[in-house]
Amino acid sequence: VHPPPIQRLVTELGKLPGIGARTAQRLAFHILRSDDADALGLADAIREVKSQIGLCEVCFNLADGPRCRMCQDERRDGALICVVEEPQDVIPIERTHEFRGRYHVLGGALSPIDGVDPDDLKIAELLVRVEEGEVREVVLATNPTTTGEATALHIGEALRQRAPEVAVTRLASGLPVGADLEYADEVTLGKALAGRRAL
Amino acid sequence: VHPPPIQRLVTELGKLPGIGARTAQRLAFHILRSDDADALGLADAIREVKSQIGLCEVCFNLADGPRCRMCQDERRDGALICVVEEPQDVIPIERTHEFRGRYHVLGGALSPIDGVDPDDLKIAELLVRVEEGEVREVVLATNPTTTGEATALHIGEALRQRAPEVAVTRLASGLPVGADLEYADEVTLGKALAGRRAL
Repeated sequence: VHPPPIQRLVTELGKLPGIGARTAQRLAFHILRSDDADALGLADAIREVKSQIGLCEVCFNLADGPRCRMCQDERRDGALICVVEEPQDVIPIERTHEFRGRYHVLGGALSPIDGVDPDDLKIAELLVRVEEGEVREVVLATNPTTTGEATALHIGEALRQRAPEVAVTRLASGLPVGADLEYADEVTLGKALAGRRAL
Repeated sequence: VHPPPIQRLVTELGKLPGIGARTAQRLAFHILRSDDADALGLADAIREVKSQIGLCEVCFNLADGPRCRMCQDERRDGALICVVEEPQDVIPIERTHEFRGRYHVLGGALSPIDGVDPDDLKIAELLVRVEEGEVREVVLATNPTTTGEATALHIGEALRQRAPEVAVTRLASGLPVGADLEYADEVTLGKALAGRRAL
């Protein structure tokens, strides 16, 4: 029924997570109805994000230059590193205003079933960073899930061997097990940060 | 927290209907993670649809050329015209396989409160089309809502004056009042079409 360009847009929208066929069609007709500035604004924003956003050369967070905002901020404590799975996990931690150190983004969590090994994550880069820098403490803020815990244990063990003088901590319990860090509320996550325990 | 290009993408995605701030952020990170081909495929599909899709010069349905697919199809009955509010209303009617005539897309429904007058819809074009063509019957398939009914009554009256020999019908009851034609199931809508009544 649809001309091919509309069908193509419905197909592309349907590839987005949580967007089913009906929603994709509804969004496509919305885009068709909206004025050119709005529709092309979205197209341009997608192009821009793909061309301008890369990974920070220090911490592997998303960045619109060689280094992310947090790694450029000289007022942040470079001796304190918070390790997270994904770039979006940085956002709720920043919202707590409890953390003024730097970050290290692993790019996922260890999961042998899904074929994610230590080599697939930025773990070696973290070890080098801790060994070479004046690091006092590493906070392991991976998700409180099976894969997140396994990742924290693996990194904790590696840090104990390679940099035994560095304190390694884990977010305090308080986060519901099985939850996703990305959706935690500020108060709970703030408490979990304040009460972080030695691994 | 976000670099400006990411913030811009979150803002643009949040303009889509039914996409809140959290969902917009989730979609933005999905786009950041996905490979360039998929992300740019969506951007291109948006550009393509805005540059290639216009309104059919006959029936004002969406078309990727001067005339839509239904107006180009010589096997369809040009003496039978189904009048709908929006282009997306054509899809569920086609899915019933009960209708082999042509369409006329009004571009909305009469709504004095929202400032939608007869001049804002393709009503004059419908009257010319009925007067000039060999039209036998006009099926008024506007939504079974207050504005859709008002639109049907207005067009029915105009057709009785300008083309009294043409039969004017309305979709049969069977559709729940207050519903949206776009989301009707095929069976209900097929019955409504088959049992259409004189206005």
